[in-house]
Amino acid sequence: MTKKLVLSFLLAAAFISRVWAGDEPPTVESNKNLIDLVQSHADYVWTLVAAALVFFMQAGFALVESGFTRAKNAVNIMMKNLMDFSLGTLAFWAIGFGIMFGASSTGWFGTSGFFLSDFKVGGDPWVLAFWMFQVVFCATAATIVSGAMAERTKFAGYLIYSAVLSAIIYPIFGSWAWGSLFNGEGWLEGLGFIDFAGSTVVHSVGGWAALAGAIVLGPRMGKYAKDGRVKPILGHNMPLAALGVFILWLGWFGFNPGSTTAANKNIAMIFVNTNLAAAAGAVLAMATSWIKFGRPEVGMSLNGALAGLVAITAGCASVTPLSAVIIGAAGGVLVVLSVLFFDKIKVDDPVGAISVHGVCGAWGTLAAGIFNIGGTSATIIGVQLLGMAACFLWVFPVAFLMFKLIDKTVGLRVSAEEELEGLDVTEHGGNAYPDFEVYSYGSMGSGGGSAAAAPVGSPGQVDLEPAEQT
Amino acid sequence: MTKKLVLSFLLAAAFISRVWAGDEPPTVESNKNLIDLVQSHADYVWTLVAAALVFFMQAGFALVESGFTRAKNAVNIMMKNLMDFSLGTLAFWAIGFGIMFGASSTGWFGTSGFFLSDFKVGGDPWVLAFWMFQVVFCATAATIVSGAMAERTKFAGYLIYSAVLSAIIYPIFGSWAWGSLFNGEGWLEGLGFIDFAGSTVVHSVGGWAALAGAIVLGPRMGKYAKDGRVKPILGHNMPLAALGVFILWLGWFGFNPGSTTAANKNIAMIFVNTNLAAAAGAVLAMATSWIKFGRPEVGMSLNGALAGLVAITAGCASVTPLSAVIIGAAGGVLVVLSVLFFDKIKVDDPVGAISVHGVCGAWGTLAAGIFNIGGTSATIIGVQLLGMAACFLWVFPVAFLMFKLIDKTVGLRVSAEEELEGLDVTEHGGNAYPDFEVYSYGSMGSGGGSAAAAPVGSPGQVDLEPAEQT
Amino acid sequence: MTKKLVLSFLLAAAFISRVWAGDEPPTVESNKNLIDLVQSHADYVWTLVAAALVFFMQAGFALVESGFTRAKNAVNIMMKNLMDFSLGTLAFWAIGFGIMFGASSTGWFGTSGFFLSDFKVGGDPWVLAFWMFQVVFCATAATIVSGAMAERTKFAGYLIYSAVLSAIIYPIFGSWAWGSLFNGEGWLEGLGFIDFAGSTVVHSVGGWAALAGAIVLGPRMGKYAKDGRVKPILGHNMPLAALGVFILWLGWFGFNPGSTTAANKNIAMIFVNTNLAAAAGAVLAMATSWIKFGRPEVGMSLNGALAGLVAITAGCASVTPLSAVIIGAAGGVLVVLSVLFFDKIKVDDPVGAISVHGVCGAWGTLAAGIFNIGGTSATIIGVQLLGMAACFLWVFPVAFLMFKLIDKTVGLRVSAEEELEGLDVTEHGGNAYPDFEVYSYGSMGSGGGSAAAAPVGSPGQVDLEPAEQT
Repeated sequence: MTKKLVLSFLLAAAFISRVWAGDEPPTVESNKNLIDLVQSHADYVWTLVAAALVFFMQAGFALVESGFTRAKNAVNIMMKNLMDFSLGTLAFWAIGFGIMFGASSTGWFGTSGFFLSDFKVGGDPWVLAFWMFQVVFCATAATIVSGAMAERTKFAGYLIYSAVLSAIIYPIFGSWAWGSLFNGEGWLEGLGFIDFAGSTVVHSVGGWAALAGAIVLGPRMGKYAKDGRVKPILGHNMPLAALGVFILWLGWFGFNPGSTTAANKNIAMIFVNTNLAAAAGAVLAMATSWIKFGRPEVGMSLNGALAGLVAITAGCASVTPLSAVIIGAAGGVLVVLSVLFFDKIKVDDPVGAISVHGVCGAWGTLAAGIFNIGGTSATIIGVQLLGMAACFLWVFPVAFLMFKLIDKTVGLRVSAEEELEGLDVTEHGGNAYPDFEVYSYGSMGSGGGSAAAAPVGSPGQVDLEPAEQT
Repeated sequence: MTKKLVLSFLLAAAFISRVWAGDEPPTVESNKNLIDLVQSHADYVWTLVAAALVFFMQAGFALVESGFTRAKNAVNIMMKNLMDFSLGTLAFWAIGFGIMFGASSTGWFGTSGFFLSDFKVGGDPWVLAFWMFQVVFCATAATIVSGAMAERTKFAGYLIYSAVLSAIIYPIFGSWAWGSLFNGEGWLEGLGFIDFAGSTVVHSVGGWAALAGAIVLGPRMGKYAKDGRVKPILGHNMPLAALGVFILWLGWFGFNPGSTTAANKNIAMIFVNTNLAAAAGAVLAMATSWIKFGRPEVGMSLNGALAGLVAITAGCASVTPLSAVIIGAAGGVLVVLSVLFFDKIKVDDPVGAISVHGVCGAWGTLAAGIFNIGGTSATIIGVQLLGMAACFLWVFPVAFLMFKLIDKTVGLRVSAEEELEGLDVTEHGGNAYPDFEVYSYGSMGSGGGSAAAAPVGSPGQVDLEPAEQT
Repeated sequence: MTKKLVLSFLLAAAFISRVWAGDEPPTVESNKNLIDLVQSHADYVWTLVAAALVFFMQAGFALVESGFTRAKNAVNIMMKNLMDFSLGTLAFWAIGFGIMFGASSTGWFGTSGFFLSDFKVGGDPWVLAFWMFQVVFCATAATIVSGAMAERTKFAGYLIYSAVLSAIIYPIFGSWAWGSLFNGEGWLEGLGFIDFAGSTVVHSVGGWAALAGAIVLGPRMGKYAKDGRVKPILGHNMPLAALGVFILWLGWFGFNPGSTTAANKNIAMIFVNTNLAAAAGAVLAMATSWIKFGRPEVGMSLNGALAGLVAITAGCASVTPLSAVIIGAAGGVLVVLSVLFFDKIKVDDPVGAISVHGVCGAWGTLAAGIFNIGGTSATIIGVQLLGMAACFLWVFPVAFLMFKLIDKTVGLRVSAEEELEGLDVTEHGGNAYPDFEVYSYGSMGSGGGSAAAAPVGSPGQVDLEPAEQT
């Protein structure tokens, strides 16, 4: 101990004398500090590039949701995805981040760091990099709900629940499972809950909120006939939906490996597991649809890829590639069965969000326990089940209550006339495709019915006659 | 001093080669050189990944521009965006880069480095990484103009002005504000002008050139009625436009933080500021449109996000996150008012490019002075105003003259018949959507009217009858 | 001076606390090891980010292929691109990677590492990062074939050949040219064959397999009239096709510079060469189409960019930027002539894949020898020609045989009725755009004709009547 003390003072003295001398030649110590600095630069670059990829998932969700629904609601879906990210960014900046990662005396939620107040000019900017990575996760949870509630939700009501989800519902559960990154330890992670990138924290939270929303809203008009038959409501643009899935798959290469928030070798296995699970999910969902419906079905195959991705999210850093194939494949089968199940119980989810994110998120969380690379145990499985249950028991009732409150106040569902007409015209004053002959467009016709003035390049400004030459 | 420099360079080179080859034990000095090398590798990776993201903005611009205009001009807009990047790449390689960053004795423009001649085989390749990052910026300035001049510009004229902008107009202003990176110091940066990533250098340059172009061209047929009313010309594809904005937002995560051209911790605050400003811009533009038009308007909301992004570009590295929210929010309000203003004075800008890039670029440049993290002053504000004025006074008259010259020679505007028919058929020989019933298509019908032969997978080869089975 | 004093004491204090805390003090040797580790982290990040970009090319191919073909086959093309990546991932994981990079005693193919068995838990994960980069290359080769065989191939037959290509045909040639990365040395690389990122290994392999497939399939109905005329079959969505090309161009910034699989300075020149060649290809193809057809043609211009990219792929790391311009420009001219040539000999390639990837891949491979930065020679040219010939002689006959076998067993081509109706309805049970009036849709009408049940958000569930309100 004395030797160590002497050594450190000698080294420090040597260091001081060199700095003081002015020419500052490199030393072993200054080199070590520089190495740490370069590594931290790599950490910043990787975490922020990954955040950018996850941000892009917002485009993917927008395309999947609009591709799987009707043309008459495409503007509305674009607006919802733009706004859940934009409002969500502001809500998470002001409130959510502080709740999720602020200092917590209880282990149930944080109470500091609102408005990024943990960051001081000239201080360590890591909190900013970390915030950037977290805000794109928060937005993912919010946008999942959007899909399940598509084609019948009032826009004003949507804005409210999107803000509440981003500011409160998502961050509170998040603090239980991930809060320790800044604030000590949430109670779930204290128990050893495994959810590396958020099968539960992000996807099940979104999925169970979506379930609550779909139940409170009720099904779209005409979806479930009185005689018990399920009537198909066709998605209007499969290439957009497929592009959306490719974008989501790409974004997941930020979502999962980026959750290291560090540039290290672990990202390789996470990349491979993510890719294998997605591939297996797509192939198995295709096969299941082929068996069930007699055709390799595009909507199911696309959702199968997403199911595989959601399922591997919890365990991506702690299962082998072979396990990833199995987890993804099971997700691919499960999502088809789940979609049919929710249609059977008449919960109308236009894009399958509850099945993809809620159900496969739960499966992935369980699977992370079962296939744990270091071995599994009843305790591990028990904690995983506890986390899954905690998520459902927190999110579903609170979201249900929130949707009911919105319904009783500003209103959650549009009128039957508005639903028939399409939300694009009634909520936003113009259609998505005014140049095209579109079957789902209502009586007001292309771009019709708005009393708005004439802003640039946008639909809906048609109290005036259209320009003659078009 | 020179001797010392040469000596250290030689020693560094020797150390690096020996240590990487493994035949010398490491020393403190060799380690220091290696650390610098690894940091430089991170700089290359970050700068070039950022360049790739900025490149992708070209797709974003193409989608926003075509989504906000009519189906009959969609091929033309794709061609313009493909070509302003392709021609611009060649023009910036041959001429522009040398003017912007070449050695300058005057401080007004550079005169070396044409055709990347500063790069020697075996020499330091940093100039190549730097060129790559700069060429994608140059293309951004060029494509901004494309939007404002959409639906009525002759393609040959477009090619000429796109090349001139990339080779001369953009680089000359750029050398004033950014030239010092290689060539000493431009006169504006010598005064302390703050424009970190180009609110003025890129966006206002594009915006004021766009203003000149829109004025010289005149409005589209039917846009402004004789009785003073503004007639809406509806954009044909809102999902594409929204995807374009998401792509642009993603690209801005290269545009702003990539402007460090170094992997360091500063990129974190730049990411956060960029994202907050975009979000605030989108929300405030939506709110403004809701108040003004009675509806949350999709075109305005999308442009609001872009307005926030443009506005934060100058100050992204030197304002706090709270300031970024304010700057973006103001941009979101401003862009709506600006779009209405330009319609009032009958400057027809189909996508709002002048407002988004010119006006909000100017606002962002001023805001970078006002909200400067190190404090502001009359001098700082004065220099910012001077830079903004210099940009307008250089770009607008020169671009105006250029457009007039093109108009008098090869011609800038298509004929009335061609405008009615759509540029896709008349300029490129085929429509964008030949399989669809499209209202804006002219009398020649789907894919009609071309005398071209039959190239692959493309429209317009219709001197022959279409194949029977379609 | 005071600042320096404070700084040195702070640094000293930090140092003391570290030693005191029980960390081992750094040494020159431990620093060297850490530097190597940080560099390896940068290598992982760069290689995997590049892999993500190359993955995204799958979306680009899907959009180009569907944009250049008819609306009635858009679902089928999305399914093919989703499945060649998904099935290909599983096939390359199980078999292909072991053949391409496994230990080889013969130099003709590897025989170890199947199912990623080279990776042991706790072992070096580099094999995973490397696999991730390679699997996205393999998928690129597979999807090239998809384009040339579009609009008439049976889906089940497609799945089979896609798996065989990924598992066997591609990896065997790959082992000849690139196998040494893990397994010693393939015979072609032993001779000095230059193909840095795969003009031959990826693109020509795909292109010559595409040629075999297009010949075995025969042309689409109505493409070549009995009187010898070529009848145009128009692509249905030019904005999607253009977006696809932008995505591919972006992806190539992973494809070419990522092939370093290391974060180093070499990536700068590769970026620049890639970009210059693409730009020159686009401009020259546009010019060629303008001269040949009297119009700047969008399909040709887009393919010109791809031709430039394919052509520079072999030599991107070993030619100067000026050479890259020449190589890309020649590719742009060549692709137009090649497309016309294949139409002349009645090989129906709906998207020009054979010309872009086969022919320009061959040109690029030759060009890498001609423009080699270190000088060229008859030997170099000879080896390049040998590699090109080896590729054709391996891929074309084997693929031809495979397609013939599939044709005789499960069937390769759909019936005439199915081709007329469109593969979307007949193979997948629903159309891509059920909300739109689409000319190419067959007699079954929008979304019609399927006997499938009603899965989420997808077309084709129409044994039931559509919901009333649509």
